[in-house]
Amino acid sequence: MIRKPENLPECLIVLLARMRADQQNEDKNGSHARKNLVWDFSFVPLSRVIVMNNNRGNIMKKFKFATLIIILGFIFSSQLYAKTAIIIASFGTTVPSAVQSIVNITSRVKAAFPDTEVRIVFTSNIIRSIWEKRSQSPKEWIKKGIPEEILFTKNLLSTFGDLKSEGFKDVIVQPTHLFHMEQYHDLLQYVNAIRSIKTIRDKWKPFNKIAIGRPALGTVGDIYPYHDDLKLAVKTFANDVALARQKAAALVYMAHGNEVWSTGLYVELQQLLRETYPQVKIFIGSVEGYPGLEDVKKNLNHYTPKIDKILLKPLMIVAGDHATNDMAGDEEDSWKSVLSKAGFDVEIILKGLGSNNQFADLFISHIKDAAKVSGIAL
Amino acid sequence: MIRKPENLPECLIVLLARMRADQQNEDKNGSHARKNLVWDFSFVPLSRVIVMNNNRGNIMKKFKFATLIIILGFIFSSQLYAKTAIIIASFGTTVPSAVQSIVNITSRVKAAFPDTEVRIVFTSNIIRSIWEKRSQSPKEWIKKGIPEEILFTKNLLSTFGDLKSEGFKDVIVQPTHLFHMEQYHDLLQYVNAIRSIKTIRDKWKPFNKIAIGRPALGTVGDIYPYHDDLKLAVKTFANDVALARQKAAALVYMAHGNEVWSTGLYVELQQLLRETYPQVKIFIGSVEGYPGLEDVKKNLNHYTPKIDKILLKPLMIVAGDHATNDMAGDEEDSWKSVLSKAGFDVEIILKGLGSNNQFADLFISHIKDAAKVSGIAL
Amino acid sequence: MIRKPENLPECLIVLLARMRADQQNEDKNGSHARKNLVWDFSFVPLSRVIVMNNNRGNIMKKFKFATLIIILGFIFSSQLYAKTAIIIASFGTTVPSAVQSIVNITSRVKAAFPDTEVRIVFTSNIIRSIWEKRSQSPKEWIKKGIPEEILFTKNLLSTFGDLKSEGFKDVIVQPTHLFHMEQYHDLLQYVNAIRSIKTIRDKWKPFNKIAIGRPALGTVGDIYPYHDDLKLAVKTFANDVALARQKAAALVYMAHGNEVWSTGLYVELQQLLRETYPQVKIFIGSVEGYPGLEDVKKNLNHYTPKIDKILLKPLMIVAGDHATNDMAGDEEDSWKSVLSKAGFDVEIILKGLGSNNQFADLFISHIKDAAKVSGIAL
Amino acid sequence: MIRKPENLPECLIVLLARMRADQQNEDKNGSHARKNLVWDFSFVPLSRVIVMNNNRGNIMKKFKFATLIIILGFIFSSQLYAKTAIIIASFGTTVPSAVQSIVNITSRVKAAFPDTEVRIVFTSNIIRSIWEKRSQSPKEWIKKGIPEEILFTKNLLSTFGDLKSEGFKDVIVQPTHLFHMEQYHDLLQYVNAIRSIKTIRDKWKPFNKIAIGRPALGTVGDIYPYHDDLKLAVKTFANDVALARQKAAALVYMAHGNEVWSTGLYVELQQLLRETYPQVKIFIGSVEGYPGLEDVKKNLNHYTPKIDKILLKPLMIVAGDHATNDMAGDEEDSWKSVLSKAGFDVEIILKGLGSNNQFADLFISHIKDAAKVSGIAL
Repeated sequence: MIRKPENLPECLIVLLARMRADQQNEDKNGSHARKNLVWDFSFVPLSRVIVMNNNRGNIMKKFKFATLIIILGFIFSSQLYAKTAIIIASFGTTVPSAVQSIVNITSRVKAAFPDTEVRIVFTSNIIRSIWEKRSQSPKEWIKKGIPEEILFTKNLLSTFGDLKSEGFKDVIVQPTHLFHMEQYHDLLQYVNAIRSIKTIRDKWKPFNKIAIGRPALGTVGDIYPYHDDLKLAVKTFANDVALARQKAAALVYMAHGNEVWSTGLYVELQQLLRETYPQVKIFIGSVEGYPGLEDVKKNLNHYTPKIDKILLKPLMIVAGDHATNDMAGDEEDSWKSVLSKAGFDVEIILKGLGSNNQFADLFISHIKDAAKVSGIAL
Repeated sequence: MIRKPENLPECLIVLLARMRADQQNEDKNGSHARKNLVWDFSFVPLSRVIVMNNNRGNIMKKFKFATLIIILGFIFSSQLYAKTAIIIASFGTTVPSAVQSIVNITSRVKAAFPDTEVRIVFTSNIIRSIWEKRSQSPKEWIKKGIPEEILFTKNLLSTFGDLKSEGFKDVIVQPTHLFHMEQYHDLLQYVNAIRSIKTIRDKWKPFNKIAIGRPALGTVGDIYPYHDDLKLAVKTFANDVALARQKAAALVYMAHGNEVWSTGLYVELQQLLRETYPQVKIFIGSVEGYPGLEDVKKNLNHYTPKIDKILLKPLMIVAGDHATNDMAGDEEDSWKSVLSKAGFDVEIILKGLGSNNQFADLFISHIKDAAKVSGIAL
Repeated sequence: MIRKPENLPECLIVLLARMRADQQNEDKNGSHARKNLVWDFSFVPLSRVIVMNNNRGNIMKKFKFATLIIILGFIFSSQLYAKTAIIIASFGTTVPSAVQSIVNITSRVKAAFPDTEVRIVFTSNIIRSIWEKRSQSPKEWIKKGIPEEILFTKNLLSTFGDLKSEGFKDVIVQPTHLFHMEQYHDLLQYVNAIRSIKTIRDKWKPFNKIAIGRPALGTVGDIYPYHDDLKLAVKTFANDVALARQKAAALVYMAHGNEVWSTGLYVELQQLLRETYPQVKIFIGSVEGYPGLEDVKKNLNHYTPKIDKILLKPLMIVAGDHATNDMAGDEEDSWKSVLSKAGFDVEIILKGLGSNNQFADLFISHIKDAAKVSGIAL
Repeated sequence: MIRKPENLPECLIVLLARMRADQQNEDKNGSHARKNLVWDFSFVPLSRVIVMNNNRGNIMKKFKFATLIIILGFIFSSQLYAKTAIIIASFGTTVPSAVQSIVNITSRVKAAFPDTEVRIVFTSNIIRSIWEKRSQSPKEWIKKGIPEEILFTKNLLSTFGDLKSEGFKDVIVQPTHLFHMEQYHDLLQYVNAIRSIKTIRDKWKPFNKIAIGRPALGTVGDIYPYHDDLKLAVKTFANDVALARQKAAALVYMAHGNEVWSTGLYVELQQLLRETYPQVKIFIGSVEGYPGLEDVKKNLNHYTPKIDKILLKPLMIVAGDHATNDMAGDEEDSWKSVLSKAGFDVEIILKGLGSNNQFADLFISHIKDAAKVSGIAL
């Protein structure tokens, strides 16, 4: 969002520094002599003082043309206002069709905050390295519908570096993670690290404020209880439930999970889904961690009358590699194969949660909350 | 330095991920069909597993072709070895001729550590923004002798981001600062911030080890006492002293200084210079902070017989804007003007300390110490 | 554990400082004149130098009687060796009978590490304030069997302060928490805080190494996977299961839980208990969070043939206020009342997990692991 | 300072917990039966809920007698208001007569903030260990005029622990250090550490706000420029100067100094003293670091007409061991001996800066500034 700069002299410094740079450049080429006559009047001595003084306490004392500058400053500074940026941080995906889910979230965030810069970050080094390779033939990928911001996506550190260079002062990092588990914990470490940078003088801090939005299903703590977040999230599953009902199918979600952080939350989510949508039988299993495919299969077999048909869908932001292969692949250990072999009629829905607009909008709400808690104007 | 990877599977993952990316790319274009036959045999299923598994504990279980992979891995992994990078962090300069001092330090560091990647960082946002502007007409500046690494220099965060993306594991940040004052303090905050990032699993840490070398004249603490560093640094001033002696001149250094961190160190340095080189009268003054130009002038007038001639030289890494203008400028408040007016015959030496090879090599020595203390192999 | 001091001069300093203090004390009283004759010979000047020099770099230069001192030092320094302490950190309890569980863990830890100092800390301010009140009539409470270390227990900061004053150099904090949830997270913040104190000179750091042991059921991360910890913990429930089996009862555990951090782990634990002990029906519910008493009741009613008898036991370290009242109380919303009213024959076991020796010994094992990972000798 | 509690339920919890503790105590003794009739009505169930619930989100739901409680709460809570404490942190001294300087600072701080708790901390482990020994015969030392708060002084961690236990919420740490060098740096690490403790729920944070006042001569940074602090401090030396003038003596201050952090500030201070008090010759030397006794001697010999008489005074908070021995001792390497031998007539002033009321009041001013910057009401 464009706001009034808190620190006018600083943005003037940048303004003047850039002007001076142009001018030096021009000077060397002996051109624009006439313009220099004018600039020399005010800027040659001034910009020198300014550029040099960026480490000096007594800047303002030397300003001989302060009034002139302030007038000029207000004219030119509209594009130099203190600025806020939003970083949408995903693990990332290499599957071109899966990119759409992340693009959808990003587009909706951009539409919700039209005056705020929005950047996409992929946190996985490996996934980024694949896109970097692809970006060497950019036209081909853009033709396939991959946006440039995906093709040239950077990591979080580089993006913070860019935002600093471009003069952004407040940053909100919004992960597309499902819950506060490993991925979110690690992202939080990065954000806390950048946030911990305290310079001797406040004005040289890389950023004023850095906020982090909570994952779709919430986070630990009592500011925004995750039980409430679960309830809001569960509402966004209504269409899946309706489809399952129409098809007289049980609804099975395949989550990612992990082995290093308790995934018991999936059971809580499953319970809440069941309570909210008693008309359909709902199951959540996890590629890694508890409850696994075997648990799901056992539970599916537990019912009388027997469950015949299953709608199988990823409980992931993107329908990427996991969804395409682990879930819907033809290999004999895929979820589709295992459940089919167990006698169920399996229908695949190859769509990430990011493609669900209501789900995607949870992140918009979390961005707003993060901004509010951190005192960032949006 | 190229070392054996600590984590073979990880570098294999990257290797395979890149291969898989190439191949997917090729697949889509329907070319290289024959090659695909071979790759499909091993890599199609494998790379899928690998890319997906980067968040998974049980990676290795699924490796059906582990033996093959390990053999291939050793063949290809030579260029994927864990790597170390050195970042030369300067405040920066916009004066084209002053760049040479930084280039000199960097070249000597590169020569000292030929197998280690060396990057230049400018920490000043304003100075970088000027170079960024200039970099839009790169040929012009390269023609003027500006190296690309200066023209396209990035800030510290972006450079850490780049190094992470490129797989560097150990990083040594070597500032070109003179002493542990504001600039070094702030740089330390950045380095400590990146260093503080602890992921749930060690293997996802952005870097293994991050070290920071101390400034030319040392730092606080008892590991490398700054008194010792001062003594070593003072030796590198011998040529200046010899020149002053030959010209029967007093030697006056203009330091940068600041108002927010005690600059009394300059007095210690001056005292040590005087003890070390009693044959020449030596003075240090500071643009900002104590002792200032007036102190220097008063001290110069203190001697009998009167001092006639002065060699005036910046006590700064670069002979940049301060040296050109504050020190050697024609304006009436420049050091040259003030001292000339006070009756001294002032001769200017417009060279930064970075151009002094012996001084520049202090940084090489500090890089070695930082590596040693941090357990980084160089 | 008693180890060789890394820093002999430091322990000599303390030794001499204490001697000097005694002596000054004696001096003022005009006594021990003869002894003073001797001490004056070596210690009057020396101890002065030492006490004063504790902020000085050049201590050793002034040691005129260094040889004598070193000999004396070795004689007296056996009790000044670098020392390790273990802090057993519990939330605490105000119920006198429940204290036994914490005492049991502590005793077993003391027996396992007989040469290491072991301290008890209660992290709850409220609980400590109650014990502080009680400690004003100490005899009464000691008569009731409350150990002094409980009656006068301190908080973590004070205990770290004490250990520093007493010269302990390495500290292992072992929580009695069940899992990495709110309590453990907060404790970790304290430990990380003390650990973050980096003095200019290493020798003035408050502690060399501070380690933290993981909770009984493990923690996040891949160093000690919590799945493995769960498996080891589940083994210690064998006696409960045997008792339930003998009584033909279902086994219901009441956990504490919370609303701010996913408690889904209890479902994982329940699943693992059921797999490990298929001969008995086992349920875990939570006072706060999921799954609650209603979930447990519903699940208990789910079986055919119907469950008649229930063994009800706290899944908590102590059988304190929660166990006595929430679980076993006569109020109508206690677990006993609710389950009795639902038709079950409820038998209470009012014993905390800390009274189960096998369970208590998990903490000994976690102390060993923490020491190993941190390089602390035990 | 007494302020309205931000968190009424919390202070009620403490209130009730204490009542309950009393009552349990009484219950066991079978006394006060009548009172119990009353208390049982409201507090038996309530206090149980409260004590147990201190880790629970839904506390208030169970409050059946909330109205009664709130009324009682307001009556009793006046002594439970959120409280602020000031910690006066000195390195410490073992010299009984030197204690007076610290006591003087503390008394003046207490008088300036009569409603705020003030505690003394000695940061030196060795010095504290000597006082601990002495405190075993407390009467003897109290008879000698040593206040109990000195005799039983604790370290910073223990004092923070005490303040937490006693319910203090805001803490201002005011060092008695002269400048931001080693001692202040290390103290800052402790304060930052305690400040870094972030609990999952804000209400369990050990403290709301922790501020640290800057040393007498200021600190780095631009919030309170140290140049300004130096000027204010120099004014407090007027009496010393007047005395020196009256005695026609030069004024020589012996500072502590150190070898690990540039002590050049002393030269700045000396320069400022000379400018402020041109009527007297003023010199500052340092026990450790630059400028040393030899520098001072050389400078004293530099004047014509020759300096005859010297007033020698410690530039330290206390006239402790350094002052008594290094400065004023009879040994041949004491400042008194060396300067006497060099031909000067040396008169000793054995008073620490803490005994100078104007100097002591600098700390009051710095406490106010720290409170203001941190938003702590005083």
